[in-house]
Amino acid sequence: MDQRAIGVFDSGMGGLTALRELRRLLSGEDLVYFGDTGRVPYGGRGRETILRYARQDVAFLRSFDLKAVVVACGTVSANALAELTAENPLPLFGVVAPAARAAAEATRNGRIGLIGTAASIRSGAYEREIGAIAPAAEVFAKACPLFVPLVENGRFRVGDRVVELVAEEYLSSLREAGVDTLVLGCTHYPLLAEVVAKTMGPEVALIDTGAACAAAAAGTLAERGLLADRVRGGSRYFVSDSTEDFARLASVFLGGGVDGDVERVEIEKY
Amino acid sequence: MDQRAIGVFDSGMGGLTALRELRRLLSGEDLVYFGDTGRVPYGGRGRETILRYARQDVAFLRSFDLKAVVVACGTVSANALAELTAENPLPLFGVVAPAARAAAEATRNGRIGLIGTAASIRSGAYEREIGAIAPAAEVFAKACPLFVPLVENGRFRVGDRVVELVAEEYLSSLREAGVDTLVLGCTHYPLLAEVVAKTMGPEVALIDTGAACAAAAAGTLAERGLLADRVRGGSRYFVSDSTEDFARLASVFLGGGVDGDVERVEIEKY
Repeated sequence: MDQRAIGVFDSGMGGLTALRELRRLLSGEDLVYFGDTGRVPYGGRGRETILRYARQDVAFLRSFDLKAVVVACGTVSANALAELTAENPLPLFGVVAPAARAAAEATRNGRIGLIGTAASIRSGAYEREIGAIAPAAEVFAKACPLFVPLVENGRFRVGDRVVELVAEEYLSSLREAGVDTLVLGCTHYPLLAEVVAKTMGPEVALIDTGAACAAAAAGTLAERGLLADRVRGGSRYFVSDSTEDFARLASVFLGGGVDGDVERVEIEKY
Repeated sequence: MDQRAIGVFDSGMGGLTALRELRRLLSGEDLVYFGDTGRVPYGGRGRETILRYARQDVAFLRSFDLKAVVVACGTVSANALAELTAENPLPLFGVVAPAARAAAEATRNGRIGLIGTAASIRSGAYEREIGAIAPAAEVFAKACPLFVPLVENGRFRVGDRVVELVAEEYLSSLREAGVDTLVLGCTHYPLLAEVVAKTMGPEVALIDTGAACAAAAAGTLAERGLLADRVRGGSRYFVSDSTEDFARLASVFLGGGVDGDVERVEIEKY
Protein backbone atom coordinates (compact mmCIF):
# COMPACT_ATOMS: atom_id res chain seq x y z
CA MET A 1 0.00 0.00 0.00
CA ASP A 2 1.28 3.44 -0.89
CA GLN A 3 -0.82 6.52 -0.18
CA ARG A 4 1.35 8.86 -2.23
CA ALA A 5 -0.01 10.52 -5.35
CA ILE A 6 0.60 9.59 -9.00
CA GLY A 7 1.96 12.36 -11.22
CA VAL A 8 0.80 12.71 -14.82
CA PHE A 9 2.12 15.13 -17.42
CA ASP A 10 1.76 16.10 -21.03
CA SER A 11 2.77 18.95 -23.34
CA GLY A 12 -0.75 20.31 -22.97
CA MET A 13 -4.25 18.93 -22.71
CA GLY A 14 -3.72 15.52 -24.33
CA GLY A 15 -2.58 13.76 -21.17
CA LEU A 16 -6.00 14.40 -19.69
CA THR A 17 -7.24 11.47 -21.78
CA ALA A 18 -4.85 9.27 -19.77
CA LEU A 19 -5.81 10.99 -16.50
CA ARG A 20 -9.48 10.30 -17.21
CA GLU A 21 -8.74 6.60 -17.65
CA LEU A 22 -6.54 6.52 -14.51
CA ARG A 23 -9.35 8.10 -12.53
CA ARG A 24 -11.78 5.49 -13.88
CA LEU A 25 -9.49 2.55 -13.05
CA LEU A 26 -8.05 3.87 -9.78
CA SER A 27 -10.72 5.93 -8.05
CA GLY A 28 -8.81 5.89 -4.76
CA GLU A 29 -5.64 7.52 -6.05
CA ASP A 30 -4.56 11.10 -5.60
CA LEU A 31 -3.53 12.46 -9.01
CA VAL A 32 -1.36 15.48 -9.81
CA TYR A 33 -1.52 16.66 -13.42
CA PHE A 34 0.85 19.02 -15.16
CA GLY A 35 0.08 20.33 -18.66
CA ASP A 36 2.79 22.46 -20.25
CA THR A 37 0.25 24.71 -21.94
CA GLY A 38 2.74 27.58 -22.08
CA ARG A 39 5.02 25.58 -24.41
CA VAL A 40 2.66 23.22 -26.24
CA PRO A 41 3.08 21.72 -28.84
CA TYR A 42 6.19 19.57 -28.30
CA GLY A 43 5.82 17.39 -31.38
CA GLY A 44 7.42 19.73 -33.91
CA ARG A 45 10.43 20.57 -31.75
CA GLY A 46 13.88 19.03 -31.76
CA ARG A 47 14.80 16.12 -29.49
CA GLU A 48 17.08 18.23 -27.30
CA THR A 49 14.30 20.72 -26.58
CA ILE A 50 11.80 17.93 -25.88
CA LEU A 51 14.22 16.34 -23.41
CA ARG A 52 14.89 19.66 -21.64
CA TYR A 53 11.18 20.39 -21.30
CA ALA A 54 10.41 16.83 -20.14
CA ARG A 55 13.09 17.03 -17.46
CA GLN A 56 11.51 20.22 -16.14
CA ASP A 57 8.06 18.65 -16.22
CA VAL A 58 9.24 15.67 -14.16
CA ALA A 59 11.23 17.90 -11.78
CA PHE A 60 8.11 19.97 -11.12
CA LEU A 61 5.94 16.91 -10.51
CA ARG A 62 8.58 15.51 -8.16
CA SER A 63 8.25 18.61 -5.99
CA PHE A 64 5.31 16.50 -4.73
CA ASP A 65 5.96 13.22 -2.93
CA LEU A 66 4.96 10.79 -5.70
CA LYS A 67 5.01 7.04 -6.06
CA ALA A 68 5.00 7.06 -9.86
CA VAL A 69 4.87 9.32 -12.91
CA VAL A 70 2.77 8.68 -15.99
CA VAL A 71 4.38 10.22 -19.08
CA ALA A 72 1.07 10.86 -20.81
CA CYS A 73 2.69 12.43 -23.87
CA GLY A 74 3.51 10.43 -26.98
CA THR A 75 6.29 12.80 -28.01
CA VAL A 76 8.09 12.63 -24.65
CA SER A 77 7.52 8.88 -24.29
CA ALA A 78 8.99 8.26 -27.74
CA ASN A 79 11.96 10.61 -27.36
CA ALA A 80 12.98 10.86 -23.73
CA LEU A 81 11.64 7.98 -21.61
CA ALA A 82 15.01 6.20 -21.31
CA GLU A 83 16.75 9.33 -20.00
CA LEU A 84 13.91 10.22 -17.63
CA THR A 85 13.84 6.66 -16.28
CA ALA A 86 17.60 6.63 -15.73
CA GLU A 87 17.50 9.97 -13.95
CA ASN A 88 14.54 9.42 -11.62
CA PRO A 89 14.34 6.78 -8.87
CA LEU A 90 10.61 6.09 -9.18
CA PRO A 91 8.53 4.17 -11.73
CA LEU A 92 7.79 6.09 -14.94
CA PHE A 93 5.13 4.80 -17.30
CA GLY A 94 5.24 5.89 -20.94
CA VAL A 95 2.67 5.36 -23.65
CA VAL A 96 4.77 3.61 -26.29
CA ALA A 97 5.16 0.09 -24.88
CA PRO A 98 1.52 -0.33 -23.72
CA ALA A 99 0.22 0.98 -27.04
CA ALA A 100 2.56 -1.32 -28.99
CA ARG A 101 1.35 -4.31 -26.97
CA ALA A 102 -2.28 -3.36 -27.49
CA ALA A 103 -1.73 -2.97 -31.24
CA ALA A 104 0.08 -6.32 -31.53
CA GLU A 105 -2.83 -7.98 -29.74
CA ALA A 106 -5.50 -6.23 -31.80
CA THR A 107 -4.19 -6.79 -35.32
CA ARG A 108 -5.44 -9.76 -37.28
CA ASN A 109 -3.70 -9.13 -40.60
CA GLY A 110 -0.38 -7.95 -39.14
CA ARG A 111 -0.70 -4.52 -40.77
CA ILE A 112 -0.53 -1.80 -38.12
CA GLY A 113 -0.92 1.90 -38.82
CA LEU A 114 0.78 4.47 -36.59
CA ILE A 115 0.11 8.18 -36.37
CA GLY A 116 1.86 10.67 -34.13
CA THR A 117 3.69 13.97 -34.01
CA ALA A 118 6.68 14.57 -36.27
CA ALA A 119 9.07 13.96 -33.34
CA SER A 120 7.31 10.72 -32.32
CA ILE A 121 7.39 9.26 -35.82
CA ARG A 122 11.00 10.39 -36.38
CA SER A 123 12.06 8.59 -33.18
CA GLY A 124 11.09 5.15 -34.49
CA ALA A 125 10.17 4.17 -30.93
CA TYR A 126 6.80 2.62 -31.70
CA GLU A 127 8.21 0.54 -34.58
CA ARG A 128 11.02 -0.76 -32.36
CA GLU A 129 8.58 -1.74 -29.63
CA ILE A 130 6.10 -3.38 -32.02
CA GLY A 131 8.98 -5.15 -33.77
CA ALA A 132 10.14 -6.63 -30.46
CA ILE A 133 6.68 -7.99 -29.63
CA ALA A 134 5.41 -8.94 -33.08
CA PRO A 135 8.37 -9.25 -35.47
CA ALA A 136 6.13 -10.28 -38.39
CA ALA A 137 3.92 -7.19 -38.15
CA GLU A 138 4.31 -4.44 -40.73
CA VAL A 139 4.06 -0.87 -39.42
CA PHE A 140 2.88 2.00 -41.63
CA ALA A 141 3.77 5.27 -39.94
CA LYS A 142 2.56 8.78 -40.72
CA ALA A 143 3.42 12.04 -38.98
CA CYS A 144 0.40 14.27 -38.42
CA PRO A 145 1.88 17.65 -37.38
CA LEU A 146 -1.38 19.62 -37.62
CA PHE A 147 -3.46 17.36 -35.38
CA VAL A 148 -2.21 18.75 -32.03
CA PRO A 149 -2.64 22.43 -33.02
CA LEU A 150 -6.13 21.57 -34.28
CA VAL A 151 -7.12 19.75 -31.08
CA GLU A 152 -5.59 22.41 -28.80
CA ASN A 153 -7.71 24.94 -30.72
CA GLY A 154 -10.83 22.89 -30.02
CA ARG A 155 -11.06 21.62 -33.61
CA PHE A 156 -11.68 17.87 -33.59
CA ARG A 157 -15.36 17.22 -34.30
CA VAL A 158 -16.96 15.25 -37.09
CA GLY A 159 -18.40 17.77 -39.53
CA ASP A 160 -15.48 20.19 -39.13
CA ARG A 161 -14.41 20.38 -42.77
CA VAL A 162 -10.86 21.48 -41.97
CA VAL A 163 -10.30 18.61 -39.56
CA GLU A 164 -11.85 16.10 -41.96
CA LEU A 165 -9.71 17.34 -44.85
CA VAL A 166 -6.53 17.15 -42.77
CA ALA A 167 -7.49 13.66 -41.59
CA GLU A 168 -8.07 12.52 -45.17
CA GLU A 169 -4.68 13.91 -46.19
CA TYR A 170 -2.85 12.15 -43.35
CA LEU A 171 -4.76 8.88 -43.27
CA SER A 172 -5.58 7.98 -46.87
CA SER A 173 -2.24 6.21 -47.42
CA LEU A 174 -2.75 4.12 -44.26
CA ARG A 175 -6.26 3.21 -45.34
CA GLU A 176 -4.95 2.20 -48.75
CA ALA A 177 -2.21 0.13 -47.09
CA GLY A 178 -4.98 -1.99 -45.58
CA VAL A 179 -4.08 -1.59 -41.92
CA ASP A 180 -6.63 -3.19 -39.59
CA THR A 181 -5.28 -1.47 -36.47
CA LEU A 182 -4.24 2.15 -35.98
CA VAL A 183 -2.18 3.40 -33.03
CA LEU A 184 -3.27 6.90 -32.03
CA GLY A 185 0.31 7.61 -30.96
CA CYS A 186 -0.40 10.89 -29.21
CA THR A 187 -2.64 11.48 -26.21
CA HIS A 188 -4.39 14.33 -28.03
CA TYR A 189 -5.72 12.00 -30.70
CA PRO A 190 -8.51 10.22 -28.81
CA LEU A 191 -10.50 13.43 -29.26
CA LEU A 192 -10.16 12.87 -33.00
CA ALA A 193 -11.31 9.24 -32.73
CA GLU A 194 -14.64 9.84 -34.47
CA VAL A 195 -13.04 11.75 -37.32
CA VAL A 196 -10.33 9.09 -37.64
CA ALA A 197 -12.92 6.27 -37.57
CA LYS A 198 -14.96 8.03 -40.24
CA THR A 199 -11.84 8.37 -42.41
CA MET A 200 -10.40 4.89 -41.85
CA GLY A 201 -13.65 2.93 -41.80
CA PRO A 202 -15.40 1.22 -38.89
CA GLU A 203 -13.48 -2.07 -39.13
CA VAL A 204 -10.12 -0.51 -38.15
CA ALA A 205 -9.30 -0.90 -34.44
CA LEU A 206 -8.09 2.34 -32.85
CA ILE A 207 -5.52 2.07 -30.06
CA ASP A 208 -5.87 4.86 -27.49
CA THR A 209 -2.34 5.35 -26.13
CA GLY A 210 -3.45 7.26 -23.04
CA ALA A 211 -5.89 4.56 -22.03
CA ALA A 212 -3.36 1.78 -22.76
CA CYS A 213 -0.76 3.56 -20.66
CA ALA A 214 -3.18 4.18 -17.79
CA ALA A 215 -4.17 0.51 -17.79
CA ALA A 216 -0.52 -0.58 -17.77
CA ALA A 217 0.33 1.79 -14.92
CA ALA A 218 -2.69 0.66 -12.90
CA GLY A 219 -1.81 -3.00 -13.45
CA THR A 220 1.83 -2.60 -12.45
CA LEU A 221 1.05 -0.56 -9.34
CA ALA A 222 -1.53 -3.16 -8.28
CA GLU A 223 0.91 -6.05 -8.85
CA ARG A 224 3.53 -4.31 -6.73
CA GLY A 225 1.04 -3.60 -3.94
CA LEU A 226 1.46 0.14 -4.42
CA LEU A 227 -2.17 1.22 -4.70
CA ALA A 228 -3.65 3.58 -2.15
CA ASP A 229 -6.11 2.44 0.46
CA ARG A 230 -8.65 5.17 -0.03
CA VAL A 231 -12.23 5.30 -1.33
CA ARG A 232 -11.93 8.44 -3.36
CA GLY A 233 -8.76 10.27 -4.32
CA GLY A 234 -8.38 13.91 -5.27
CA SER A 235 -7.01 15.63 -8.36
CA ARG A 236 -4.85 18.71 -8.66
CA TYR A 237 -4.05 20.43 -11.93
CA PHE A 238 -1.09 22.60 -12.84
CA VAL A 239 -0.44 24.41 -16.10
CA SER A 240 2.22 26.79 -17.39
CA ASP A 241 -0.21 29.16 -19.14
CA SER A 242 -3.51 30.75 -18.19
CA THR A 243 -5.63 28.66 -15.82
CA GLU A 244 -8.90 29.98 -17.29
CA ASP A 245 -8.06 28.84 -20.81
CA PHE A 246 -7.17 25.42 -19.41
CA ALA A 247 -10.37 24.97 -17.45
CA ARG A 248 -12.45 25.86 -20.50
CA LEU A 249 -10.99 23.18 -22.78
CA ALA A 250 -10.03 20.57 -20.17
CA SER A 251 -13.60 19.51 -19.54
CA VAL A 252 -13.80 18.28 -23.15
CA PHE A 253 -10.77 16.05 -22.62
CA LEU A 254 -11.98 14.84 -19.26
CA GLY A 255 -15.53 14.23 -20.45
CA GLY A 256 -16.80 16.29 -17.53
CA GLY A 257 -15.85 19.18 -15.27
CA VAL A 258 -12.37 19.72 -13.87
CA ASP A 259 -12.61 18.05 -10.44
CA GLY A 260 -9.91 19.95 -8.61
CA ASP A 261 -7.98 23.20 -8.31
CA VAL A 262 -6.05 24.53 -11.30
CA GLU A 263 -2.86 26.44 -10.53
CA ARG A 264 -0.23 28.08 -12.65
CA VAL A 265 3.44 27.18 -12.40
CA GLU A 266 6.55 28.80 -13.88
CA ILE A 267 7.90 25.60 -15.35
CA GLU A 268 11.15 27.10 -16.63
CA LYS A 269 12.30 27.47 -13.00
CA TYR A 270 12.46 23.67 -12.55
CA MET B 1 25.76 57.82 -36.52
CA ASP B 2 25.50 54.70 -34.41
CA GLN B 3 27.39 51.55 -35.37
CA ARG B 4 25.57 49.32 -32.90
CA ALA B 5 23.34 46.53 -34.13
CA ILE B 6 19.54 46.43 -34.33
CA GLY B 7 17.82 43.55 -32.54
CA VAL B 8 14.77 41.87 -34.02
CA PHE B 9 12.62 39.18 -32.42
CA ASP B 10 9.53 37.13 -32.99
CA SER B 11 7.85 34.06 -31.50
CA GLY B 12 9.29 32.04 -34.37
CA MET B 13 9.95 32.54 -38.06
CA GLY B 14 7.47 35.32 -38.80
CA GLY B 15 9.77 38.17 -37.80
CA LEU B 16 12.06 37.19 -40.64
CA THR B 17 9.62 38.97 -42.96
CA ALA B 18 10.48 42.18 -41.08
CA LEU B 19 14.19 41.34 -41.01
CA ARG B 20 14.15 40.86 -44.76
CA GLU B 21 12.65 44.32 -45.25
CA LEU B 22 15.12 45.87 -42.76
CA ARG B 23 18.00 44.32 -44.68
CA ARG B 24 16.60 45.72 -47.93
CA LEU B 25 16.15 49.24 -46.52
CA LEU B 26 19.25 49.36 -44.33
CA SER B 27 21.96 47.33 -45.98
CA GLY B 28 24.66 48.81 -43.74
CA GLU B 29 23.16 47.71 -40.43
CA ASP B 30 24.24 44.79 -38.30
CA LEU B 31 21.14 42.77 -37.39
CA VAL B 32 20.65 40.28 -34.56
CA TYR B 33 17.57 38.08 -34.86
CA PHE B 34 16.00 35.96 -32.15
CA GLY B 35 13.19 33.51 -32.98
CA ASP B 36 11.63 31.76 -30.00
CA THR B 37 11.15 28.56 -31.97
CA GLY B 38 11.18 26.47 -28.79
CA ARG B 39 7.99 28.18 -27.56
CA VAL B 40 6.19 29.23 -30.74
CA PRO B 41 3.28 29.94 -31.15
CA TYR B 42 2.59 32.84 -28.78
CA GLY B 43 -0.79 33.85 -30.20
CA GLY B 44 -2.94 31.33 -28.35
CA ARG B 45 -1.36 31.95 -24.95
CA GLY B 46 -2.48 34.20 -22.14
CA ARG B 47 -1.26 37.78 -21.83
CA GLU B 48 0.83 37.07 -18.74
CA THR B 49 2.74 34.31 -20.53
CA ILE B 50 3.25 36.47 -23.62
CA LEU B 51 4.65 39.26 -21.46
CA ARG B 52 7.00 36.89 -19.61
CA TYR B 53 8.31 35.41 -22.85
CA ALA B 54 8.69 38.84 -24.47
CA ARG B 55 10.70 40.12 -21.49
CA GLN B 56 13.08 37.18 -21.86
CA ASP B 57 13.36 37.77 -25.61
CA VAL B 58 14.30 41.41 -25.09
CA ALA B 59 16.67 40.56 -22.22
CA PHE B 60 18.48 38.07 -24.45
CA LEU B 61 18.77 40.55 -27.33
CA ARG B 62 20.07 43.19 -24.93
CA SER B 63 22.96 40.90 -24.02
CA PHE B 64 24.24 42.51 -27.25
CA ASP B 65 25.00 46.22 -27.38
CA LEU B 66 22.00 47.40 -29.41
CA LYS B 67 20.72 50.78 -30.52
CA ALA B 68 17.13 49.60 -31.06
CA VAL B 69 14.85 46.58 -30.93
CA VAL B 70 12.24 45.73 -33.54
CA VAL B 71 9.35 43.78 -31.98
CA ALA B 72 8.59 41.85 -35.16
CA CYS B 73 5.75 39.88 -33.58
CA GLY B 74 2.14 41.01 -33.83
CA THR B 75 1.15 39.20 -30.64
CA VAL B 76 3.90 40.80 -28.53
CA SER B 77 3.42 44.24 -30.14
CA ALA B 78 -0.32 44.13 -29.40
CA ASN B 79 -0.02 42.81 -25.86
CA ALA B 80 3.26 43.92 -24.32
CA LEU B 81 4.82 46.88 -26.14
CA ALA B 82 3.94 49.43 -23.44
CA GLU B 83 5.58 47.37 -20.69
CA LEU B 84 8.64 46.57 -22.77
CA THR B 85 9.06 50.23 -23.71
CA ALA B 86 8.76 51.34 -20.09
CA GLU B 87 11.28 48.77 -18.95
CA ASN B 88 13.98 49.26 -21.58
CA PRO B 89 15.97 52.46 -22.19
CA LEU B 90 16.32 52.09 -25.95
CA PRO B 91 13.88 52.59 -28.83
CA LEU B 92 11.48 49.68 -29.40
CA PHE B 93 9.52 49.50 -32.63
CA GLY B 94 6.34 47.43 -32.72
CA VAL B 95 4.20 46.47 -35.68
CA VAL B 96 0.81 47.82 -34.58
CA ALA B 97 1.19 51.58 -35.07
CA PRO B 98 2.97 51.42 -38.47
CA ALA B 99 0.44 48.90 -39.77
CA ALA B 100 -2.46 51.01 -38.52
CA ARG B 101 -1.03 54.07 -40.26
CA ALA B 102 -0.51 52.15 -43.49
CA ALA B 103 -4.07 50.82 -43.35
CA ALA B 104 -5.56 54.27 -42.68
CA GLU B 105 -3.66 55.61 -45.68
CA ALA B 106 -4.59 52.73 -47.96
CA THR B 107 -8.33 52.53 -47.38
CA ARG B 108 -10.65 54.37 -49.74
CA ASN B 109 -14.01 53.21 -48.36
CA GLY B 110 -13.05 53.38 -44.67
CA ARG B 111 -13.66 49.65 -44.17
CA ILE B 112 -10.53 47.98 -42.83
CA GLY B 113 -10.20 44.26 -42.19
CA LEU B 114 -7.84 42.98 -39.53
CA ILE B 115 -6.56 39.46 -39.02
CA GLY B 116 -4.20 38.27 -36.32
CA THR B 117 -3.67 35.70 -33.59
CA ALA B 118 -6.29 35.21 -30.90
CA ALA B 119 -4.20 37.23 -28.43
CA SER B 120 -3.67 40.09 -30.89
CA ILE B 121 -7.34 40.41 -31.75
CA ARG B 122 -8.39 40.08 -28.08
CA SER B 123 -6.05 42.96 -27.17
CA GLY B 124 -7.93 45.50 -29.30
CA ALA B 125 -4.60 47.24 -29.94
CA TYR B 126 -4.98 47.62 -33.71
CA GLU B 127 -8.51 49.02 -33.39
CA ARG B 128 -7.35 51.58 -30.81
CA GLU B 129 -4.48 52.67 -33.03
CA ILE B 130 -6.61 52.88 -36.19
CA GLY B 131 -9.33 54.70 -34.24
CA ALA B 132 -6.81 57.32 -33.11
CA ILE B 133 -5.60 57.98 -36.68
CA ALA B 134 -8.83 57.50 -38.64
CA PRO B 135 -11.80 57.81 -36.26
CA ALA B 136 -14.32 57.35 -39.08
CA ALA B 137 -12.87 54.03 -40.23
CA GLU B 138 -14.70 50.82 -39.41
CA VAL B 139 -12.52 47.86 -38.40
CA PHE B 140 -13.65 44.26 -38.98
CA ALA B 141 -11.43 41.97 -36.92
CA LYS B 142 -11.04 38.21 -37.14
CA ALA B 143 -8.78 35.93 -35.11
CA CYS B 144 -7.05 33.29 -37.23
CA PRO B 145 -5.54 30.86 -34.69
CA LEU B 146 -4.58 28.17 -37.20
CA PHE B 147 -2.57 30.41 -39.53
CA VAL B 148 0.66 30.42 -37.47
CA PRO B 149 0.73 26.64 -36.91
CA LEU B 150 0.09 26.19 -40.65
CA VAL B 151 2.87 28.57 -41.68
CA GLU B 152 5.36 27.19 -39.12
CA ASN B 153 4.64 23.76 -40.65
CA GLY B 154 5.45 25.09 -44.10
CA ARG B 155 1.82 25.13 -45.22
CA PHE B 156 1.02 28.44 -46.90
CA ARG B 157 1.02 27.93 -50.66
CA VAL B 158 -1.79 28.52 -53.15
CA GLY B 159 -3.17 25.12 -54.11
CA ASP B 160 -2.81 23.72 -50.57
CA ARG B 161 -6.43 22.72 -50.02
CA VAL B 162 -6.18 22.82 -46.22
CA VAL B 163 -4.73 26.32 -46.21
CA GLU B 164 -7.28 27.55 -48.75
CA LEU B 165 -10.16 26.06 -46.77
CA VAL B 166 -8.94 27.64 -43.52
CA ALA B 167 -8.48 30.97 -45.31
CA GLU B 168 -12.01 30.82 -46.68
CA GLU B 169 -13.37 30.08 -43.21
CA TYR B 170 -11.53 32.99 -41.62
CA LEU B 171 -11.83 35.56 -44.39
CA SER B 172 -15.28 35.11 -45.91
CA SER B 173 -16.96 37.40 -43.36
CA LEU B 174 -14.38 40.13 -44.03
CA ARG B 175 -14.87 39.79 -47.77
CA GLU B 176 -18.62 40.03 -47.30
CA ALA B 177 -18.17 43.11 -45.10
CA GLY B 178 -16.66 44.84 -48.14
CA VAL B 179 -13.30 45.79 -46.65
CA ASP B 180 -10.93 47.31 -49.20
CA THR B 181 -7.86 46.99 -46.99
CA LEU B 182 -6.74 44.07 -44.86
CA VAL B 183 -4.10 44.29 -42.15
CA LEU B 184 -2.05 41.08 -41.99
CA GLY B 185 -1.64 41.63 -38.25
CA CYS B 186 0.98 38.95 -37.72
CA THR B 187 4.44 38.75 -39.23
CA HIS B 188 3.81 35.16 -40.29
CA TYR B 189 1.01 36.17 -42.61
CA PRO B 190 2.96 37.71 -45.52
CA LEU B 191 3.77 34.12 -46.50
CA LEU B 192 0.01 33.61 -46.86
CA ALA B 193 -0.37 36.75 -48.99
CA GLU B 194 -1.13 34.87 -52.20
CA VAL B 195 -3.72 32.65 -50.53
CA VAL B 196 -5.27 35.68 -48.80
CA ALA B 197 -5.33 37.65 -52.05
CA LYS B 198 -7.00 34.75 -53.84
CA THR B 199 -9.63 34.54 -51.10
CA MET B 200 -10.26 38.28 -50.70
CA GLY B 201 -10.00 39.29 -54.35
CA PRO B 202 -7.28 41.30 -56.09
CA GLU B 203 -8.74 44.72 -55.28
CA VAL B 204 -8.18 44.42 -51.52
CA ALA B 205 -4.94 46.08 -50.34
CA LEU B 206 -2.90 43.88 -48.02
CA ILE B 207 -0.88 45.57 -45.28
CA ASP B 208 2.30 43.69 -44.42
CA THR B 209 2.95 44.52 -40.76
CA GLY B 210 6.56 43.37 -40.81
CA ALA B 211 7.39 45.58 -43.78
CA ALA B 212 5.46 48.55 -42.32
CA CYS B 213 7.33 48.18 -39.03
CA ALA B 214 10.71 47.87 -40.74
CA ALA B 215 10.02 51.02 -42.76
CA ALA B 216 8.98 52.93 -39.63
CA ALA B 217 12.06 51.80 -37.73
CA ALA B 218 14.35 52.70 -40.65
CA GLY B 219 12.73 56.14 -40.98
CA THR B 220 12.98 56.97 -37.28
CA LEU B 221 16.59 55.82 -36.98
CA ALA B 222 17.49 57.91 -40.05
CA GLU B 223 15.71 60.98 -38.67
CA ARG B 224 17.57 60.67 -35.39
CA GLY B 225 20.92 60.22 -37.14
CA LEU B 226 21.31 56.74 -35.71
CA LEU B 227 22.09 54.78 -38.86
CA ALA B 228 25.43 52.99 -39.20
CA ASP B 229 28.16 54.23 -41.51
CA ARG B 230 28.91 50.92 -43.16
CA VAL B 231 28.46 49.55 -46.68
CA ARG B 232 27.28 46.11 -45.74
CA GLY B 233 26.14 44.91 -42.34
CA GLY B 234 26.08 41.37 -41.04
CA SER B 235 23.29 39.19 -39.65
CA ARG B 236 23.30 36.79 -36.73
CA TYR B 237 20.47 34.43 -35.92
CA PHE B 238 19.51 32.88 -32.61
CA VAL B 239 16.74 30.39 -31.91
CA SER B 240 15.54 28.47 -28.86
CA ASP B 241 14.98 25.16 -30.70
CA SER B 242 16.99 23.16 -33.22
CA THR B 243 19.15 25.29 -35.51
CA GLU B 244 18.82 22.81 -38.41
CA ASP B 245 15.03 23.03 -38.45
CA PHE B 246 15.31 26.83 -38.43
CA ALA B 247 17.74 27.04 -41.32
CA ARG B 248 15.54 24.79 -43.44
CA LEU B 249 12.39 26.94 -43.17
CA ALA B 250 14.02 30.35 -42.67
CA SER B 251 15.12 30.64 -46.29
CA VAL B 252 11.46 30.64 -47.33
CA PHE B 253 10.73 33.62 -45.07
CA LEU B 254 13.87 35.43 -46.10
CA GLY B 255 13.36 34.76 -49.79
CA GLY B 256 16.92 33.42 -49.98
CA GLY B 257 19.55 31.67 -47.92
CA VAL B 258 20.26 32.45 -44.26
CA ASP B 259 23.14 34.94 -44.53
CA GLY B 260 24.76 34.40 -41.14
CA ASP B 261 25.42 31.97 -38.32
CA VAL B 262 22.51 30.34 -36.50
CA GLU B 263 23.01 29.58 -32.83
CA ARG B 264 20.86 28.09 -30.14
CA VAL B 265 20.07 29.91 -26.91
CA GLU B 266 18.41 28.72 -23.70
CA ILE B 267 15.93 31.56 -23.58
CA GLU B 268 14.40 30.60 -20.22
CA LYS B 269 17.67 31.64 -18.55
CA TYR B 270 17.10 35.29 -19.46
